[in-house]
Amino acid sequence: MPESIPKDSVGIVKPETVNFEEPITLQSGKVLPHFQLVYETYGTLNSDKSNAVLVCHALSGHHHAAGYHAMGDKKPGWWDTAIGPGKAIDTNRFFVVAVNNLGGCHGSTGPTSINPDTNKKYGPDFPIVTCKDWVNSQVRLSDHLGILQWAAIVGGSLGGMQVMQWSIDYPERIKNAIVIAAAPKLSAQNIAFNEIARKAILSDADFHDGHFYEKGTIPKTGLILARMLGHITYLSDAAMREKFGRELRDGAISFDYDVEFQVESYLNYQGEVFSKNFDANSYLLMTRALDYFDPAQEYDHDLAKAFAQASCNFLIVSFTTDWRFSPARSEEIVEALLEAKRNVSYAEIDCPQGHDSFLLDVPRYTQLFKAYMDAIQLEAAVTTSEESN
Amino acid sequence: MPESIPKDSVGIVKPETVNFEEPITLQSGKVLPHFQLVYETYGTLNSDKSNAVLVCHALSGHHHAAGYHAMGDKKPGWWDTAIGPGKAIDTNRFFVVAVNNLGGCHGSTGPTSINPDTNKKYGPDFPIVTCKDWVNSQVRLSDHLGILQWAAIVGGSLGGMQVMQWSIDYPERIKNAIVIAAAPKLSAQNIAFNEIARKAILSDADFHDGHFYEKGTIPKTGLILARMLGHITYLSDAAMREKFGRELRDGAISFDYDVEFQVESYLNYQGEVFSKNFDANSYLLMTRALDYFDPAQEYDHDLAKAFAQASCNFLIVSFTTDWRFSPARSEEIVEALLEAKRNVSYAEIDCPQGHDSFLLDVPRYTQLFKAYMDAIQLEAAVTTSEESN
Repeated sequence: MPESIPKDSVGIVKPETVNFEEPITLQSGKVLPHFQLVYETYGTLNSDKSNAVLVCHALSGHHHAAGYHAMGDKKPGWWDTAIGPGKAIDTNRFFVVAVNNLGGCHGSTGPTSINPDTNKKYGPDFPIVTCKDWVNSQVRLSDHLGILQWAAIVGGSLGGMQVMQWSIDYPERIKNAIVIAAAPKLSAQNIAFNEIARKAILSDADFHDGHFYEKGTIPKTGLILARMLGHITYLSDAAMREKFGRELRDGAISFDYDVEFQVESYLNYQGEVFSKNFDANSYLLMTRALDYFDPAQEYDHDLAKAFAQASCNFLIVSFTTDWRFSPARSEEIVEALLEAKRNVSYAEIDCPQGHDSFLLDVPRYTQLFKAYMDAIQLEAAVTTSEESN
Repeated sequence: MPESIPKDSVGIVKPETVNFEEPITLQSGKVLPHFQLVYETYGTLNSDKSNAVLVCHALSGHHHAAGYHAMGDKKPGWWDTAIGPGKAIDTNRFFVVAVNNLGGCHGSTGPTSINPDTNKKYGPDFPIVTCKDWVNSQVRLSDHLGILQWAAIVGGSLGGMQVMQWSIDYPERIKNAIVIAAAPKLSAQNIAFNEIARKAILSDADFHDGHFYEKGTIPKTGLILARMLGHITYLSDAAMREKFGRELRDGAISFDYDVEFQVESYLNYQGEVFSKNFDANSYLLMTRALDYFDPAQEYDHDLAKAFAQASCNFLIVSFTTDWRFSPARSEEIVEALLEAKRNVSYAEIDCPQGHDSFLLDVPRYTQLFKAYMDAIQLEAAVTTSEESN
């Protein structure tokens, strides 16, 4: 809890909301007649609007990426290690925008919003959205902010997938793509983990086919199981060993099924907290967006052909102990970019923390990320007749 | 389904049951006043009883390890690839005993047995058993069969843990220990997977605190989730990719939460089958036995000191793509055996199938396993006064 705001913080921040009254057609064919996005900004947009950086969030993230909402907040935004004055995404230099994705549960239109057709919460009737839909909605936000071209779009994990989608779908609107701890599509194992998490939620008696709001319940057990399972994949085996080992809460085994090992206790706690803060319908939707992400699909399943659309520079970062999206998965991205003759830098960071590393201040990673960002030259997008065609 | 029994099969087999009327004191301090074990045997015990091989099963295994119970059986026993005439455990040479563990649900005394105190099924009141308890109960079976010393005790995964426990607790009764795809104790990540599986069962509304028999229910969803989760850890990422990739059942995504990907379909099917064949209380108990296994604990947490008790020869086998119990975990066993100056052979088998490899006919593995077994010399245990002290 900051009694005073740290010097390298963006300070007290306030979310903003924008309403888009034009309908948006989703990849599923469904249409949202109107929608809102909640976002935060850090730093100052320069006069030629050439210093804007968009931050895309991962599975359980949101728009509160840096700073504090109030003095006394226990924690800063989820990526405060990376965003702030003098940090990797230096707010002395960049104007940073962090948005809550469509379908989320932190203020942007999603399952907990009112469905204009029924005047009740959408719940399970909220359409499934994809990375392409997110990018399309983020383009609306860019237009609203008057940002023709982002100096960089940055994201880890599912956030990195949105960055790739941007580079392919809107090449003229992104100068640098920073893709951290991501993959070009999910593996069968990744999908399997998502399926079990979904099944835990869908089969929770308190889920009521997604209509739990009206019943005054939440599928707490399902959400807890889903989060516990997620957590296993976020941490490396080594990080878990380092953090918990086989330590027992009470020093001795009790020959029952109570929570005994520290790791059980930790996961249960993480699950409990999550179940209070996250909407089950949003969780289902986010995991399906992960499953469906596969930008190569529209290009004859050829990722290089997909990336041939892109014109930005790429920084791809992976972590040695990430087994959710291992370095090999990042290398698939790098290979495709090289084949497409794109400008790509790649770093595999040697650190023990697993997938979660992208959220942490791992010195080598932070230095490298900062060096890349610092080297970005800020020039307004030149809209020549050639480029605008 | 064999219309005729394959030549290299042990043929039609029949389980046998033995009742032990002497009480057994468990590691927890609880006492079972009497118990029964169900087992199968293959091959013929020789006159000096020097050719007996004990097979210990893993989490969801049982005593039906080889052959068929009847013509028309869809599948042979779970380790039919390894047990039979001319196979790795050659029944032309060895007398093989496979037992269902105490606490199981296939005929040995367990949660579905009648509790003599209440004349109802034990259910959740069946005491938690450990690998040490299993070994102690298997010693009773050895005595019953008149087997003073096993030519070999063999097991994969949790089965391998029982083999290690035998070598430490009853060194004079085992000549060769074959430990396949095991670990000297669970990692925090292993425990975490077990905890989620248990939580899925324990929180299933149909579990009724383990008293579901009386309610006429089974915690089907919990069992399905537990089994699906287990399956992810039994297969390598590569094996899943090879087997399912991102193939869709119906060729196109449907923008909903129905089972769409082949891998989802497979896991759901496996879970469904398992939920019909396995007892939830047994499953809880088996996972706890895994969590608790740690033979070094009694020896100042020094595995070498534990293995210094052993006098048998060891074969340790691991598989390159096994991420449940990786080769590094087998190497911990090998290191401790070397430090204890035991006679140990170690093989890391390069194959893509992951943890499940131990159940499969992987040629290099089968050859090596067979070569080791074939080289075992059959000599009756010599009980000198020195050795019997």
